[in-house]
Order: sequence, then C-alpha cells, then structure tokens
Amino acid sequence: MELHDIISIRDLSKSKINHILKVSEDMEKHGARKNKYLDGKILATLFFEPSTRTRLSFETAMGRMGGSSIGFSESGTTSTSKGESLKDTIRTVESYADAIVIRHPQEGSARLAANVASVPVINAGDGSNQHPTQTLLDLYTIKRETGALKKNIALIGDLKYGRTAHSLAYALSMFGAKMTFISPKGLEMPEEVITDLAKFNTKIEETNDLEGSIPGLDVLYVTRIQKERFPDPEEYEKVKGAYKITLKTLESAKKNSIILHPLPRVDEIAPEVDATKHARYFKQVHYGLPVRMALLGLVMGALD
Amino acid sequence: MELHDIISIRDLSKSKINHILKVSEDMEKHGARKNKYLDGKILATLFFEPSTRTRLSFETAMGRMGGSSIGFSESGTTSTSKGESLKDTIRTVESYADAIVIRHPQEGSARLAANVASVPVINAGDGSNQHPTQTLLDLYTIKRETGALKKNIALIGDLKYGRTAHSLAYALSMFGAKMTFISPKGLEMPEEVITDLAKFNTKIEETNDLEGSIPGLDVLYVTRIQKERFPDPEEYEKVKGAYKITLKTLESAKKNSIILHPLPRVDEIAPEVDATKHARYFKQVHYGLPVRMALLGLVMGALD
Amino acid sequence: MELHDIISIRDLSKSKINHILKVSEDMEKHGARKNKYLDGKILATLFFEPSTRTRLSFETAMGRMGGSSIGFSESGTTSTSKGESLKDTIRTVESYADAIVIRHPQEGSARLAANVASVPVINAGDGSNQHPTQTLLDLYTIKRETGALKKNIALIGDLKYGRTAHSLAYALSMFGAKMTFISPKGLEMPEEVITDLAKFNTKIEETNDLEGSIPGLDVLYVTRIQKERFPDPEEYEKVKGAYKITLKTLESAKKNSIILHPLPRVDEIAPEVDATKHARYFKQVHYGLPVRMALLGLVMGALD
Repeated sequence: MELHDIISIRDLSKSKINHILKVSEDMEKHGARKNKYLDGKILATLFFEPSTRTRLSFETAMGRMGGSSIGFSESGTTSTSKGESLKDTIRTVESYADAIVIRHPQEGSARLAANVASVPVINAGDGSNQHPTQTLLDLYTIKRETGALKKNIALIGDLKYGRTAHSLAYALSMFGAKMTFISPKGLEMPEEVITDLAKFNTKIEETNDLEGSIPGLDVLYVTRIQKERFPDPEEYEKVKGAYKITLKTLESAKKNSIILHPLPRVDEIAPEVDATKHARYFKQVHYGLPVRMALLGLVMGALD
Repeated sequence: MELHDIISIRDLSKSKINHILKVSEDMEKHGARKNKYLDGKILATLFFEPSTRTRLSFETAMGRMGGSSIGFSESGTTSTSKGESLKDTIRTVESYADAIVIRHPQEGSARLAANVASVPVINAGDGSNQHPTQTLLDLYTIKRETGALKKNIALIGDLKYGRTAHSLAYALSMFGAKMTFISPKGLEMPEEVITDLAKFNTKIEETNDLEGSIPGLDVLYVTRIQKERFPDPEEYEKVKGAYKITLKTLESAKKNSIILHPLPRVDEIAPEVDATKHARYFKQVHYGLPVRMALLGLVMGALD
Repeated sequence: MELHDIISIRDLSKSKINHILKVSEDMEKHGARKNKYLDGKILATLFFEPSTRTRLSFETAMGRMGGSSIGFSESGTTSTSKGESLKDTIRTVESYADAIVIRHPQEGSARLAANVASVPVINAGDGSNQHPTQTLLDLYTIKRETGALKKNIALIGDLKYGRTAHSLAYALSMFGAKMTFISPKGLEMPEEVITDLAKFNTKIEETNDLEGSIPGLDVLYVTRIQKERFPDPEEYEKVKGAYKITLKTLESAKKNSIILHPLPRVDEIAPEVDATKHARYFKQVHYGLPVRMALLGLVMGALD
C-alpha cells in the first residue's frame, strides 16, 4: 500500500485505514517486541510543543524496529529561536532523517512540512487541528477491545475544542458507528463537524446528560475539560463534577462496555475506576506502540 | 539471581550485593565496551530532576549492550506539566519500555513507581532519600581499588543531609567495615542512622577533626557541603576551608589510601589532589558503567 | 591517517584536509545511508549552547554508522548548574563515550576539553572562535558543486564577528582560492585575519559593493548580519536591504555560480532564490552528513 504523509485522518480512505489496522495487528502479534525492519533508519522527532506520550511512543517504535531517533522536545533549543522558518528547519532535517514526526502549535504546520519535505511527514498534533495517529490507535483499540468499530460510541467532555474528538467522530462515522456526543453546555460538538458527518448517514445523538446515556453505550470515550475554557471558575467546578466518571456513574453501564481516554487525564475519570473491567485507557496506550510501528514501517517502505 | 526493582540498598541481601559486584566485574572484564545482551530492548530514563552523570551512564550502558533509551531530562517537557499523576506517567511508560530508571524530587516516588509498574524500576535518586546504584558503584570501587570492603573508611562532609552517605554507611556496615564519620558541627550523621548500624556491630567513630583522623584511614569518601545548609554565610566559609582535602591534608595519609567522591565536586577536593595516587574519583565514575550494565542486564533477565 | 582531536581548521594540514574530503566522498558514495563502522560505539554530544543542525547531524551520523549518542542540548539540565567545572564534566563523560562533540560559549573551551580527555574531542563551536566541521563541510560542498577549491569566492555579510567566515577564509587560502570580502562598513574582515592570509599569497579584494562584485564570482558564501551588532536600528535596516540576495542581485551572476550559507538564515537570502540553480545551501546541509560520518569514523579509528 502506498502511504507517504499522515497529516489528517481525512486523507485516508476506509480501505487504507483497514490496511493500517491489519498491519498494526501483525506488529502486535509478531514484531512488537523487536524486529529489524528499520535497521539503520533515522526518525526525526520535532516537538515544538511538549509531549511525553506521543514522542516516547514514536521513539520506542523506532528502537523496537532497529532504528534510531534524533530531534528535540521543545523549541527553545532549536534554530527556530534564532529566527529560522519552519520551512528551512524541515529542509534541513530531511537531509538527515528517513521520516519526520512533527508536533507544532500552529494549525496547518504539519501540512506545510509535508509539502516541503521529500521524506514522509507524520503529524503528531498541529495546534487544535489534527492528531491522526491518535485517531488510528483509538480505532485500533476499539476494534481490539470490542471486536468491531460499528458500535454505540459516546464522545464525552469538551467536544468543542478537542481535536481528538473531531477526528475520531469523523473516522468512526466512516465505519458506521452510532455516535452519542455528551458535553457540558457551551462545549458541544461544532455544527460544521456534525454537518460533515451527515455524508456518512451517521446516527447521532446529542445530549448534556451523561448518566442517562450510559446504559446504551458500548464505548465511553472521555476527554479532558480544560479549566481555561470557562470564564467563571465556579461554572467549571459544577461541570467538572457532573462529567466525571466514577464507580457510581458506571452502575448502569453495559457489562462489556469499555472506557477510553487519550490521556493525560486529570480529573475526568476517578482512580477507583482503574481497577474495573471497563477501564481500557492504559491498554489504549499500549496499542499505540504497534500502531506507530506499523505507520513508521509503512511510510518508510519497510512494510507493505 | 532474581532481581526486579532496585529501590533501596536495604532491599538487597549481602549475597545479592556480592552477586551484583561479581556480575559487574564480568561486565568490566568481558563486556564493557560492547555486547548484545539487551539488543532491541528499551530503557526509559525519567529524570524529573537534572543529572548528567547518572542519566548519561545509564544511557551509555544501554547503548553498549545493544539497547536504546527513551525519556526526558527535565519535567518541564512532560505530561506532568499538564497535571498528570506520577502513577499515570508510569503506567504509560511501562507500555513502551522494558525497564524504567527514575529520578524524582519526592521521597518515596521510586517505590511508588515500582508498585505501579510491571516492568523493573531502578531508583536513580528520590529526593534526599535513596540512590542505590550510587552505593553499589561505591562498593564496587572500594573493592576493586583496595581489594576488600572490610576497611577503615571515613565518610566526610555533610553527613546529615547527604543520601549518599547514609546508604553507603549502611551497606559498608553489612560488610564489616570500620567507619569514621567526619563532619562539621551541625551536619553530623543522624542518630537514627547510627542506631540502625548497631545491628551489624559496626565499629563507629565520630569526630569533627578531619586532620587528626587521616593517618588511620584506608578510604576517604568525601561529599559536598552545601552553602544553603548554613544560616550564616561566614559560618559556611569557615567550615568549607576546614574540610577541604588538599595536598597538605594528605601529608599524613597512608600510602595506599584512596579518595572517593560521588561528584560533582565543587570545592571539597583541591584540583592539585587529582594528580596524586590517592585520587580515585574519576575511576569511580568509570566503574559506574560496568555496575549499571550489570544491573540493567540483571533486572531485564538478560544476565543471571 | 592519524586524526585525534578536531579543534581548529588550523591544526589540519592541507594533505589531512584532502584526505578528510576523500573519505567524505567514500561515505557519500557507499556508506551514507547505513553502515556498521561504529557499531556499539557511543558519542557524547555536549551542547552547552543550543543548535539544531550541528547536534542532529552528528547524532544522525552516529545512527547511520550503527552507534548511538548520549548528551544534552542545553546546560540547564547538567551538573554544570551545580557548579561543576568543565574539566570535571569532561573527565566524567570520557568514561562513557568513545568520542566527544562539544559546543560551548567560551572561546578555548574545546581545546581545554581536548587537553583533558583521553578520547577524541570535536569542536562544534566555541563561542565566536572556531567551528571546524562547518569549514570542512563548506570545503566539501564547494568541491562537489564546482569541481574545485581554487575558485573566485566571496564571503558576504558580517565578516567581523562571524567565526565561519574567518575559518573558511583561512582554509580556502590554503587551497589557492581568490577571495572577495564583501561586508557593510564596520563589519569588515579583521586586519589580523587578512595579514594571516598573506602567507598563502592569497589574492584578496575587499569591498562594500555587493552588486558590483557579483559578475566575477563562482561562489557567494553568505552569512547572517545580526541586528544586535548595530547601535542604531535604522542603520541595521539600511544595511540589511543592501546585502540581501534576491533574484535581482543575481541577474548579473555567472550561470554556474553557486550560493552557500551556513544556516540558519533569517533575511539574507530571499526565499525566491531557493528555486534557482544557484541555491545550494540545502545541498550544503546534506553534505554535512557524509563529512561528519567521515570525521567520526576517522577520529574513532574505524576508518583510515
């Protein structure tokens, strides 16, 4: 399969996504602990914004496949601080690396990088815009943990600003999932996202009522609600409490329903939930590795 | 030998320590420049506090054994800055790595990490509490450079706050060393440490007189005296001078006595001492590598 | 060929430089994507000052040759912040690494490091003094892109403070190049540099007139003019415009003339120039890799 840049989940057809999920499964089964597919290859991890999870999982994936990583974890130590343009940085780094992973605060920066670079570019988050490898590992997790993508899936929390929620809603719609959008007032899923999903004939329900929705759900996908979105701190405290997943929230949940979260979490899921069978957010982290191994292998032409 | 976490020197029996020292010697003799025991393995180095020496020596040990490292060297670029708990960070990182090395300002943090993680955790310093791999390399150095651990050994400097001194005193007591604790007034070895050593029937001498103690010593283990411990800067200046090792201090020293220091040093040992036969603190650094290679190999089950 | 430290271009004879360029060409032709010359070797990259380009290219070179890198990209996370001397840091790091690459703000620091270390030290910039691997890759680029070093070469921009310009002028003089020094008033090439070049009988022209010089040139080597060099911001703006390379500037240029720049650039070369055949500054970056692979292989005795 031809796969060069990974900038937005919207660039990928359903059949490409299916293929990526299949290769991820191969990686998980046969290769995830160690292989030599990327022996001597170099990955550049350009993190203009901090991230533990994403950066470390890409670097781990390279290490497991025999390659190595170069890069930076904050822009302060780079030539950007000397006034270099992103274009010039990319043109420099493509001389060294076989592929580039980039996280950058500016929307559209990853696309720009891909247009400039001759080597493949993977978007690891461009501002509040896209984070496609997160979406792919979310899909992989849902498929592995529930057996299918055509499920009753709720996205919960800040659906207005969360890039994760928008991309995932789009991707799940492609696969015929029934979606429930559960958010506090003022943080609802934007109208244009919902309009966009109409082309897939997605069944959508919108509500502010978390507890009432629980019994029908197969997957609860929880996202962070950030304090700074609220002009009034008191308002935030009220909302926070109402959308927190606790043991009590889960009393009416389906036995096999699962809870996911892109992490890091702060308060959205009570630690008491971690020990239940519903909690799969650390498995979700775990699945990030085979998915990113698959992606790296595919874009560098070492897997097909 | 079964060896999983390395959190405190007190968790290790005398026979386990002896085994670690033996494997370290194997590493030094046969494998220290390069081997493939950890081919394809990943070590996470989570440094929530800065450290050149410890972090670089662990990463070097991995590289020499064919593995690679992921991690961070300061907490500013991590999800911790987004409010993630240490537990969640550990649960994430254990998905990627075969072992975790952690340095964290909070006492007890390494133990917490070990309780959470399924992969081995090595404590590289938790606040002023423990730093067991330093102690192990100190033991290794003393054995290699003097031929035995049952020696006349002085710990010199700030014995009140220095974690290095407490752990080393404990470990050396297990091996029957005779100890002299030499410190300025107010920075003496805490009473509870001394009480604790009583179970080994350790011969202990306490004094504020550095010069008078020198002739009887086989090993001078010097530690830093930090300015910020003194309310009065003048007091500090006086003390600093009195506990500095110079050529003059060493005039009455045994011919074969050696000087160690966990480094970095600031003023405690005059540079003029570096060229003498007594100075072994850079050899001590050097021995850190085989000891850490041994530990990494043992906890990941690649050596036994 | 015996090659240990690389501190200043002046330490290298013409025949040594020729040999380095030859080995670089071998690396480019046969080994640049991947080889095992440095399998299991460790490079320490000690960057007390930020740098994307130089640090990443050395780390890439190690990775391509089968080795790995340890180090830091800013001094804040090191023992230097605890008051450790550079000497002690070097003595520590030489215990771990097979070679050391150092960038440090202080002039003479790399030479000091080389005097202390038993392993080879490569200077990656010591303040405004030397940056010899940049000079070597500049020579390599000129030779590869024009076929020879004995050319009409202009150094353009801040020739007073730019370490790159001084070293390159020296090196090109050794190889019989004809030099033109083009700079704004007040940023002229220092008298002592010009006097020094006299021993090679170098033909030198000095001018403030960029446009008038263009027709005769084979190589335009452009450097940054830093705002902070000018007491009066207006003065800077005037100068900046006059020394900027645009399509218009190039109208009178020789067909085969090339433009180089050590990068990062800010304003000195208009982006419109990038698409012309003259622009070779990204190729120059590209050549940094085989040159640094050659240097690492040579100083660690893996190539000869």
